[in-house]
Amino acid sequence: MSNTFSFGLLATDGMARRGRIDTPRGAIATPAFMPVGTVGTVKAMYPEQVRETGADILLGNTYHLMLRPGAERVAALGGLHLFMDWQRPILTDSGGFQVMSLAKLRKLTEHGVTFRSHIDGTAYELTPERSIEIQTLLDSDIIMQLDECLALPAERREMERAMELSLRWADRSKAAFGHQPHRALFGIVQGGDDPELRGRSAAGLKSIGFDGYSIGGLAVGEPQEVMFRVLAELTPELPADKPRYLMGVGKPDDILGGIERGVDMFDCVHPTRAGRHGHVYTRFGVINLKNARHKDDPRPIDVASPNANCRRFSRAYLHHLVRTEEILGAMILSQINLSYYQELVSGARAAIETGTLGDFAASTRAAWVQGDLPPL
Amino acid sequence: MSNTFSFGLLATDGMARRGRIDTPRGAIATPAFMPVGTVGTVKAMYPEQVRETGADILLGNTYHLMLRPGAERVAALGGLHLFMDWQRPILTDSGGFQVMSLAKLRKLTEHGVTFRSHIDGTAYELTPERSIEIQTLLDSDIIMQLDECLALPAERREMERAMELSLRWADRSKAAFGHQPHRALFGIVQGGDDPELRGRSAAGLKSIGFDGYSIGGLAVGEPQEVMFRVLAELTPELPADKPRYLMGVGKPDDILGGIERGVDMFDCVHPTRAGRHGHVYTRFGVINLKNARHKDDPRPIDVASPNANCRRFSRAYLHHLVRTEEILGAMILSQINLSYYQELVSGARAAIETGTLGDFAASTRAAWVQGDLPPL
Repeated sequence: MSNTFSFGLLATDGMARRGRIDTPRGAIATPAFMPVGTVGTVKAMYPEQVRETGADILLGNTYHLMLRPGAERVAALGGLHLFMDWQRPILTDSGGFQVMSLAKLRKLTEHGVTFRSHIDGTAYELTPERSIEIQTLLDSDIIMQLDECLALPAERREMERAMELSLRWADRSKAAFGHQPHRALFGIVQGGDDPELRGRSAAGLKSIGFDGYSIGGLAVGEPQEVMFRVLAELTPELPADKPRYLMGVGKPDDILGGIERGVDMFDCVHPTRAGRHGHVYTRFGVINLKNARHKDDPRPIDVASPNANCRRFSRAYLHHLVRTEEILGAMILSQINLSYYQELVSGARAAIETGTLGDFAASTRAAWVQGDLPPL
Repeated sequence: MSNTFSFGLLATDGMARRGRIDTPRGAIATPAFMPVGTVGTVKAMYPEQVRETGADILLGNTYHLMLRPGAERVAALGGLHLFMDWQRPILTDSGGFQVMSLAKLRKLTEHGVTFRSHIDGTAYELTPERSIEIQTLLDSDIIMQLDECLALPAERREMERAMELSLRWADRSKAAFGHQPHRALFGIVQGGDDPELRGRSAAGLKSIGFDGYSIGGLAVGEPQEVMFRVLAELTPELPADKPRYLMGVGKPDDILGGIERGVDMFDCVHPTRAGRHGHVYTRFGVINLKNARHKDDPRPIDVASPNANCRRFSRAYLHHLVRTEEILGAMILSQINLSYYQELVSGARAAIETGTLGDFAASTRAAWVQGDLPPL
C-alpha cells in the first residue's frame, strides 16, 4: 500500500496500456471500470458485492452528495468511505456535469455556477474552489477539476469558449487543491469534437500539471466513431506517465474501443441502470429480459459464466422478477452487469500484458455479433 | 432428512412448545418465523441472505403466484424451490386471503370464489380443489386448505357462516389432497372472536384430521388482547402432536405472546415491508430511520447485535438511504428486521428448552419498553 498517489505503466499493446494506480487506500489495475455510487451507494448492491465483481474503485457524484446528505455532514461522519463502508479508493466528479443536466435555474459565470437543487429548490454555488473543497470533505482519493461540459453537436465558438473557461478553472482548481500527495487531482480535457481545440486543452492542462487527465465532453450525443476519432487524436498528446480517464463511458463496445485508443479508466451508470430496466450484458451481447421469449425459458443467462448469478437463476425467473418489478431483479441484474464489465476490462488487461489485445478484441466482438442463445 | 412430513414436540414451558418439523426438504425448528416470499422472492433479499438470518422455511402466496408467473408455468420450470433457488421447505397459503383483500369483482359461492386479477383484470376461479392443485403445482411442502377469512369485528351469524363454509371446504381439501406423505395439509380454524365457534371449528377439523392446524381470522382488525384471548382458549383444543400456525402474525410482541399461548409457526410481511419504509426492529423496539434525529448520528443500530448490518452502518447513513429511497436501504433494513425476528424466535426456543420462557419474555419486553438509544 502506497502512502502517495502514483501511476505505473506496466505494458502497452498498440495504443492500449496496462497500468497500475497506487493510492493509500489500495491499488487500481488499469484499464479499470469504476461502478458509479451516485449518492453514496452503488444502486442495489452491498459494497462487498461490488468488490466481489472485481471493482478496485468506485465513483461518487459530487452534485448528488452535496445536496444529500451534504459534504460537511459526510466529513463530520468520517468521510465517504466510512459513510458507505467502502474502504478502497473513490474517485469523485466535480459536480459540474450534473449541475448542467439536472439542476434548475443554472447561471454560469467566470466565477462559477449558481443553481437550485432539482429536489427541493435550495440555492447552491459551485466554483472551482468549492468543488475541490467538497471533494476534499468527502475525502475523495481522485478529485476532478470543475469544468464546463457541452453537449454535441455544438458551435466551434461555444466549444472554444467552454474549453478556455475550463482551462482557467483548471488553473484555479490546481491552486485550490494545493499539495496533497495522498490524493490526486485530474484536469479535464474539453474541446468538443475539434482536434485543434482538444490539442490546446491538453497542452494547457499539461503546462499546469496534473496527476491524471480526464477526457470530458464525449459520449454527449456524438456518434461512436466521432468519439473514437477524438480519442485516437488526443491520447498521444497526453503524458504517457499519467492515467487517462474517459468520463461517463459507456457501453461495453465503447469501453473496448476506448482501451484500444489508450484510455485507462472508465465509469458509467449504464450497467446498473440497464440492470434495473431488465437489460443484462454477457459475452454474447445484451439481453432484454422483459421480452416474452424468456417467459418459459429454464436456461440460465450463461452456463459458462464465472459469475454464479449467471448460472443459478433461469431466464424465466429473471423475466418474472423484472415483470413484477421486484427489487431482487434489480439486485441480480445490476450484479450481472457489473460483473460482466469487470470481466471485460480484466480480459483486456490480461491481453495487453501478453500483446494479444487485437485477438481479444476480435473474439470479444465476434461473440457480441453472434449474440444471445436462440429462443427455445 | 426425513422422507415424510412429521412433527415432534421436544419441550414445553407452560403453554409454550419447543418442537421440530421434519420434511424431505429439511427441518424446521419451532417456534418458527417464516419470511414471506410473496411472488417468488422475499423482497430485497437473495435466498441465501434469508437463510443466513436463520429462516428454516419461507411462505409463498398462492394468489400472487397463480397470477404471475402462473402455477402451471412454475411447475413446468421445476417447482417453486428451483424457480427461486430456495431448496428448503416452503409453506403456501390457499390464496383465499388475498382474493378477499386484493382481487376485484369477487363472487363467493359454496363451490368456491371467482374473481378478477388486480393487475390486469383476468378472470380466475379458486375452489378448494383448485387451491390444492395450484399449491401442488408449486410443489409446496406445507399446503393450506381454502377458507373464508372475515375481518373483525363481524356479526356472529357471519362468523358462523364463514366458519361452517370453511369446514366444508376443509373436507373437500382433504379429499383433493389425497395421500401425499412427503408434504403436509393444514386445516384452518375460523370462528372470529367467538370461543364457541372456534371450538366447533377445531373439533370439525380434528375429526377430518390434518397434519397441522392453522389459526386464521386473527390479526384482522381486533385488539391484541382479543387475539391473545382467542389463542389461549383455542390452542388447548388443538392436538398436541401437530404443529399450530398463526397466520399472518405479526409484530414482535404479537409473536412472543403467540408463543406463550402455544403457537408454533408465524409468518408476516411486516418485517420486510417495515424495512422498506425505514422502520427497523431491534431488541430495543422499533426505530423510525426517517426521523431527522438520525441525520447526523454516527452510531450504528446496535453495537452488540449478532447481525453485522446492525454494527457496520451508521444511523446517519441508513437515514440517508431511506430519505433518498435507495434500494440498498430496503436491502439492509429488510435484512435487519428478518434477523431480529429470527433472533426473537431462536431466543424463545432456547428459553423453552430450559423452562425459562417467563424470564426471557420479561427481559425481552423490558428492553422493548426501555426503547432505543437516547438522541445524541
